[in-house]
Amino acid sequence: MDNLPHVLVVGGGFAGLWATRALRRAPVRITLLDRDNHHLFQPLLYQVATAGLSAPAIAAPLRQILRKQRNVTVLLGEASTIDAARKTVSLSDGREIGYDKLVLATGATHAYFGNEQWAAHAPGLKTLNDALSIRRQILTAFERAEAEDDPEGRAAWLSFAIVGAGPTGVELAGTLAEIARHTLRGEFRRADPKQARVMLLEAGPRVLSNFPESLSEKARRQLIRLGVEVRTGAAVSAIDDQGVTIEGERIAARTVLWAAGVAASPLARSLQVPLDRAGRVPVAADLGVPEHPDIYVAGDLAALKSNGRVVPGVAPAAKQMGNHLARNLLLGLKCQPGKAFRYRDFGNLATIGRKAAVVDLHGLRFSGILAWWFWLAAHIFFLIGFRNRLVVLIDWAHAYWSYQRSARIILGSKGQQDP
Amino acid sequence: MDNLPHVLVVGGGFAGLWATRALRRAPVRITLLDRDNHHLFQPLLYQVATAGLSAPAIAAPLRQILRKQRNVTVLLGEASTIDAARKTVSLSDGREIGYDKLVLATGATHAYFGNEQWAAHAPGLKTLNDALSIRRQILTAFERAEAEDDPEGRAAWLSFAIVGAGPTGVELAGTLAEIARHTLRGEFRRADPKQARVMLLEAGPRVLSNFPESLSEKARRQLIRLGVEVRTGAAVSAIDDQGVTIEGERIAARTVLWAAGVAASPLARSLQVPLDRAGRVPVAADLGVPEHPDIYVAGDLAALKSNGRVVPGVAPAAKQMGNHLARNLLLGLKCQPGKAFRYRDFGNLATIGRKAAVVDLHGLRFSGILAWWFWLAAHIFFLIGFRNRLVVLIDWAHAYWSYQRSARIILGSKGQQDP
Repeated sequence: MDNLPHVLVVGGGFAGLWATRALRRAPVRITLLDRDNHHLFQPLLYQVATAGLSAPAIAAPLRQILRKQRNVTVLLGEASTIDAARKTVSLSDGREIGYDKLVLATGATHAYFGNEQWAAHAPGLKTLNDALSIRRQILTAFERAEAEDDPEGRAAWLSFAIVGAGPTGVELAGTLAEIARHTLRGEFRRADPKQARVMLLEAGPRVLSNFPESLSEKARRQLIRLGVEVRTGAAVSAIDDQGVTIEGERIAARTVLWAAGVAASPLARSLQVPLDRAGRVPVAADLGVPEHPDIYVAGDLAALKSNGRVVPGVAPAAKQMGNHLARNLLLGLKCQPGKAFRYRDFGNLATIGRKAAVVDLHGLRFSGILAWWFWLAAHIFFLIGFRNRLVVLIDWAHAYWSYQRSARIILGSKGQQDP
Repeated sequence: MDNLPHVLVVGGGFAGLWATRALRRAPVRITLLDRDNHHLFQPLLYQVATAGLSAPAIAAPLRQILRKQRNVTVLLGEASTIDAARKTVSLSDGREIGYDKLVLATGATHAYFGNEQWAAHAPGLKTLNDALSIRRQILTAFERAEAEDDPEGRAAWLSFAIVGAGPTGVELAGTLAEIARHTLRGEFRRADPKQARVMLLEAGPRVLSNFPESLSEKARRQLIRLGVEVRTGAAVSAIDDQGVTIEGERIAARTVLWAAGVAASPLARSLQVPLDRAGRVPVAADLGVPEHPDIYVAGDLAALKSNGRVVPGVAPAAKQMGNHLARNLLLGLKCQPGKAFRYRDFGNLATIGRKAAVVDLHGLRFSGILAWWFWLAAHIFFLIGFRNRLVVLIDWAHAYWSYQRSARIILGSKGQQDP
């Protein structure tokens, strides 16, 4: 067993976990390294942030998922640098792990593109801790509004600005509007959650720019119907704890959420190869790094084109890359050339809020309640593990009929940044 | 409305919430003040700490519970001092709230009886944040054992000492043994969770000392069967981050949990009346404070006897006191004398672990699997809110058949004390 080639997979997201599982019958020893003990179903993270689901409902321990795969050792730890010459990865706690083949799948994080000081005032949403922190901030804002005597101060606590109208921004804005208009109805005595302003600020010309224009327009109308103020062509020039500035215009908002940009995980920098603008690793068609024959990259960390189009940073692409890379890695161990990756694009869905979504399945485009049910079914189907699926279904069924949300619990004290 | 007498209820636990609800048709204005936004079903808190349930499954927002009770304003904040002469309560953020009648129901917290330095190494279990912190500590200990090369160091990470064999200590020990023996089976490659030592350390002569001796003995035997080392007559003399000392004997254990003592909430001190040894307020038979005619105390904060016996700090007693106090408070507003509180003791249950519990219903005593089912039914029945009950039921049914636990998610980073 110890003589088998050692494959080190860094990152237990969709790409890393699918690569690991694809190697289940391969004659290799695998170490799966992740800084968290769980695989996260990221497409539903906004539901944890908006108190619709509990954190454990969308996460499962990596050890539990892989318990029967005997060729894997799961290790909790954070990779800090790669030494491609010595074929080792160093962890932040000083440990060092050697490898024969390295799979990098550390994904992306939110990025402020040179305005890192905004991070303290406009948190982004990438991990469960981010989600619990945003949940606390949102729920606390309504509490502060209730305790505030000054009407102007109260209005600022009831103002929410979401920066960036990609899928995450649209989901957050739509759900926040629903919470203010429906969930909290009748629960406050002084503040009126219905007076809450939910603003979706987008620098580009339209929301959901990765969708066809007609669906962007449908999404915009559905957002407005839910009560969201949609502002496109609105580039943010400043953010502090009192609000945001858009081209000279000041908007008071005590809660600002960041959904405007992602950058690849910084681990890629230690590969010492040229990275693309978002910090991603340009990979060859076989998902290998041209400069380092023993290193493969998959998921949001990889930059490549398939059929002339950029492969998007979405879960299906990450899974496909993970699977494909595993096959090429085995070919590489036999000194055979790998095969070119082809992204199979099954379509694009985005949810907007209660009974509102857009779906684009190559030509077949629809929106509204039908799209929402389609989105719901697809996401429950893909959630890992029987128990999660059932509990999520119950939570949603309950939320649908009652407008209630099952995880409206403020955790951690107000002074803390992290939950 | 503003002319109605103002009742300030401090604490939204069983006592405070039941008092508030009992006043739903009364001609009063009520303010319910709590430092958390939720009511907590404390009897199941150990399930959150041991990763069996998610935090939102046993908590519900106070606003949501009370949304239809129009004479209540819920306020998030922490009471710091009471000025009985001026009839005001000061909050830690500087706000001040006046009252006509004050209901104190701030409960108890864990206490180290002069060894406050133990708090950093042996956390107690009273709030959701405590539970998430303990959950992180337990799950991380197994991860650290897996990463440890030295066998002795690994054994220390796999050693768990629980100090105090009351209901909470017994629940934690039994569940930890189940996690080590069953839940984590096959998930680690280097550490063997089955080698874990779970020690229950009790200074007194027997476990569950509030039960009859025969049931204590049954509980002890069930604990041993689950794999717990039970040590009675074992008074702890030192605790640090490496383990505990019992009368000169050193036990290496990287995880020490504190279930040995509670003390009343410190808010009572500002009443400036003599308190009992645990810091509780001795109340009159009508649950009023003799020195302060407008102040009532209920729940774990109150010290009183009923039928010659001390009323225990359990949920049913807190609910009964809350209900009773509400009636006396209304009589007091009409300048009529209150009635004496009588505790109706329906019996005592404690769970030990999978298929193991003890039940004492006045003379009717039983233990084992039947007692466990009885305990389970009673606790699910009393959980507030339809949704919680159903989700908890599913989580438990799943845990029962699979030995799995649904909330094995490490949240927060290791360096942090609070989740």
